[in-house]
Amino acid sequence: MSKSPAVSLYDTTLRDGTQGEGVNFSAHDKLRIAHELDAFGMHYIEGGWPGSNPKDMEFFELAKTQKFKNAKIAAFGSTRRANLAVEDDPQVKMLIDAGTPVVTFYGKSWLLHVTEVLRTTPEENRAMIRDTVRFCKEAGREVIYDAEHFFDGFKDEPEYALSTLAAALEGGADFLVLCETNGGSLPHEVEEITRKVQARFPGAKIGIHSHDDGGLGVANALASIRAGAVQVQGTMNGYGERTGNCNLTTVVPNLALKMGYEGIVPDLTKLTALSKFVDDVANLPHFNRAPFVGSTAFSHKGGTHVNAVQKLARSYEHIQPTAVGNRQVVLVSDMSGQDNILRKAQEMGFDLKRGEESRRILDQIKQRENDGYEYEAADASFELLLRRELGLYQPSFKLLEYHTTHRQHGERGLDTCEATVKIELNNERIYTVEEGDGPVNALDQALRKALATAHPELAKVSLCDFKVRILDSKSGTAAKTRVLIESTDGVDSWGTVGVDFNIIDASWEALRESLEFYLLRKKQPRGA
Amino acid sequence: MSKSPAVSLYDTTLRDGTQGEGVNFSAHDKLRIAHELDAFGMHYIEGGWPGSNPKDMEFFELAKTQKFKNAKIAAFGSTRRANLAVEDDPQVKMLIDAGTPVVTFYGKSWLLHVTEVLRTTPEENRAMIRDTVRFCKEAGREVIYDAEHFFDGFKDEPEYALSTLAAALEGGADFLVLCETNGGSLPHEVEEITRKVQARFPGAKIGIHSHDDGGLGVANALASIRAGAVQVQGTMNGYGERTGNCNLTTVVPNLALKMGYEGIVPDLTKLTALSKFVDDVANLPHFNRAPFVGSTAFSHKGGTHVNAVQKLARSYEHIQPTAVGNRQVVLVSDMSGQDNILRKAQEMGFDLKRGEESRRILDQIKQRENDGYEYEAADASFELLLRRELGLYQPSFKLLEYHTTHRQHGERGLDTCEATVKIELNNERIYTVEEGDGPVNALDQALRKALATAHPELAKVSLCDFKVRILDSKSGTAAKTRVLIESTDGVDSWGTVGVDFNIIDASWEALRESLEFYLLRKKQPRGA
Repeated sequence: MSKSPAVSLYDTTLRDGTQGEGVNFSAHDKLRIAHELDAFGMHYIEGGWPGSNPKDMEFFELAKTQKFKNAKIAAFGSTRRANLAVEDDPQVKMLIDAGTPVVTFYGKSWLLHVTEVLRTTPEENRAMIRDTVRFCKEAGREVIYDAEHFFDGFKDEPEYALSTLAAALEGGADFLVLCETNGGSLPHEVEEITRKVQARFPGAKIGIHSHDDGGLGVANALASIRAGAVQVQGTMNGYGERTGNCNLTTVVPNLALKMGYEGIVPDLTKLTALSKFVDDVANLPHFNRAPFVGSTAFSHKGGTHVNAVQKLARSYEHIQPTAVGNRQVVLVSDMSGQDNILRKAQEMGFDLKRGEESRRILDQIKQRENDGYEYEAADASFELLLRRELGLYQPSFKLLEYHTTHRQHGERGLDTCEATVKIELNNERIYTVEEGDGPVNALDQALRKALATAHPELAKVSLCDFKVRILDSKSGTAAKTRVLIESTDGVDSWGTVGVDFNIIDASWEALRESLEFYLLRKKQPRGA
Repeated sequence: MSKSPAVSLYDTTLRDGTQGEGVNFSAHDKLRIAHELDAFGMHYIEGGWPGSNPKDMEFFELAKTQKFKNAKIAAFGSTRRANLAVEDDPQVKMLIDAGTPVVTFYGKSWLLHVTEVLRTTPEENRAMIRDTVRFCKEAGREVIYDAEHFFDGFKDEPEYALSTLAAALEGGADFLVLCETNGGSLPHEVEEITRKVQARFPGAKIGIHSHDDGGLGVANALASIRAGAVQVQGTMNGYGERTGNCNLTTVVPNLALKMGYEGIVPDLTKLTALSKFVDDVANLPHFNRAPFVGSTAFSHKGGTHVNAVQKLARSYEHIQPTAVGNRQVVLVSDMSGQDNILRKAQEMGFDLKRGEESRRILDQIKQRENDGYEYEAADASFELLLRRELGLYQPSFKLLEYHTTHRQHGERGLDTCEATVKIELNNERIYTVEEGDGPVNALDQALRKALATAHPELAKVSLCDFKVRILDSKSGTAAKTRVLIESTDGVDSWGTVGVDFNIIDASWEALRESLEFYLLRKKQPRGA
């Protein structure tokens, strides 16, 4: 990492993000995302609330064994309970037990909440904040204090809200984060209140945590930073309760490209891929119209616009799409797309130059993306595609036939599922049949069995993730299906993709590519 | 209409909105939307660009025969071409022929565009603006001048940008609309530049037209209004080129509820229905997380939040959901307690009280959630579960057996998939077999066929979304599968969930619950 930036990025996708509808991560999902956030250059990653569920505790256990380059991992919780010594509070104990370098917890700033929700006294609330900060500091943690409902509290009773921040500072808090919890404040209010806090506590490091209920989550974060905040909390793709949190995929490029924080992340061009990766892991569709990272963010439909951008891109583009790893989409040939391909191929160690070959590959990819393939989370399939086009691919076997049968007897009776696979391998016909928990699992078993004699090393390969997405949701069960598979041999992991109207065929394609990729890479390492 | 509001709302859903990807309206669609916008209280409705396509001209022909209560219809176009007398310009002629009370056209403010895109001189550009305004005024129109790229132009050459506004005023323009065309400016810039324009032209009525490329379309509109703009242009649901236009479904409630423009529309509670109506006509999915109008805009998932909103709604809600015609939703998830369940049951019209019964239901839900079920997006399955526990459920049929077969010949050869369903219904055994695009689609077809004679109303039900998620991603294809189905009868929609080790069985469960729920609700409405 180069010199410390003036504003730090605090990602809470894995905690506040999961309070959004339809956002659920396993501990393993969380770990994958944490590593990508770290590689992107997030400064803090909030991993979960150890006290709230066992899944989050599992994540912190896993995280202890991992190395992160840029990011510090934070555990999230709340102040101690009212009328309980901090050292006796089991929730605070778990927060410390999570073993993270950073602890973030929230406390109440709004008198209404103190009296009506917590049902305690203003003085006890301040003591809860002070005690909890001090306890966490004494345990050697960096402490980030989230002042929940700070803006609503300030509008209601400014002196009380400020006194809760004073309590956090007395305890030794490293950051005072002003939370726009209900998401209803306007940017000029946020700016003004941040300035007042700054004036009251001149030495303190202030952060901003905003929500998008008024459609102003990003604007409020930027307004607070203009007023002196030095930390911004948010989530990838704006996941979060209700309308979501402040969207970091929007805030980061605004800071880097518009507000002079050029060095806030080491490589902003990774932003679009990161945004898609997180959606893929969450199994949520990518929002086309998302600023900066959406698939239509730089697409031009109006005739006059298309004509103008051909003459001069910045005539209808506020930034260069490549600056955030996105691309201009127009109906004509597309140079920035080719750049993406070339860069990706180089990254993989292939010696691909701009020209006939790269154009053919680009056309292939356009065609396949049009058919529903997506390569963001399927590097192995992308590499197989490259190898095919570059003449570096030989199939490991020839498929003759496969079929699956599934039978359910009665309401919850006997249930069997089997698959038959027939392949040709080294001039030999191999027929196998296996049962499985479902047609795809049965196929997986039967194919492995067919390949086992020739390739015993496949025993090491296992599937670690399997995701299915229906592409044209409007046609329901008759729509196209995209299957994304993540595999591992215990050391590396790789992703493959399959698309078909039939989920079994789509799964077969992704399964087969997963195994083929492994066999090919063993024989012929990348770029060889 | 009551007294004229201080800020007028200018809707361009039907023109700028249609430049968004996937947004297409027939002339008839446009008319339906125009009437709804009018009823809601929009002051101006831009119907299209008569010169650009015959569909827009057809709309204006239709619009001439209609009465609108609140709104004035506007036709959109551009200045005359360079070096052509305005009365000889066919595009300007069509603008007048549209026969609307209002004409809006855009001209260039940014020297870069004048020289590089229009390829004309700064003086001729000003003459084009002045002549076109004057010509339209002489034809008796109210003239709204859209100063395209005003903010970029101003940042580049402030005096030139201002001189184009002066040209519009010389021609007699009624409004000078400052366009943040590329969507990349920040709110404080928009506010400051609007103030400068105001200072230069103290008597002029200024408007703001913004885009969302930086995620700041709404914030920029509000900033300009704070600086004195008296007209805001935008689209319903933020449709528009690239990331879309300023979203009026967000701007209007912010103005009405936060910025003191209470009377800006006669009845703000119609907002959510209007937003959904426009999405329905456009055949686009409603964005769940949309501020104010989204289905999750007031939904609460976290246990501490649910507990708090039970005590006091405004503890986690920035406005009353009913103020915009939306409602509070409590999500049932593994983060929820008994409060969520009781609240949800009451919402559904069931008379459930805290006690023996509600505890049993909570245990059931916890158990099923532990097994992988998720009820956040599966209200119908949740209701079926409640009905089962409350003795209000009778299955519509008895399953005897189903089986599916799928066969793939060769690498990309013949591919067939079929399902057999055997059920007992009204003491009769019904066996059906159907082919499909995949095993689930085949099962869906076969089950519908089996139920068709007894329940012809099921023909109205279709699946609109089908999502598959693998639960324990670590065990790959042998892991548990959760299937979420969203169904609709064209009026309502409902979600169901199924979980099994086998994807086919999980899909069957969700499919069956979808159809059962529909049949049950027809027979026995909620809470009956």
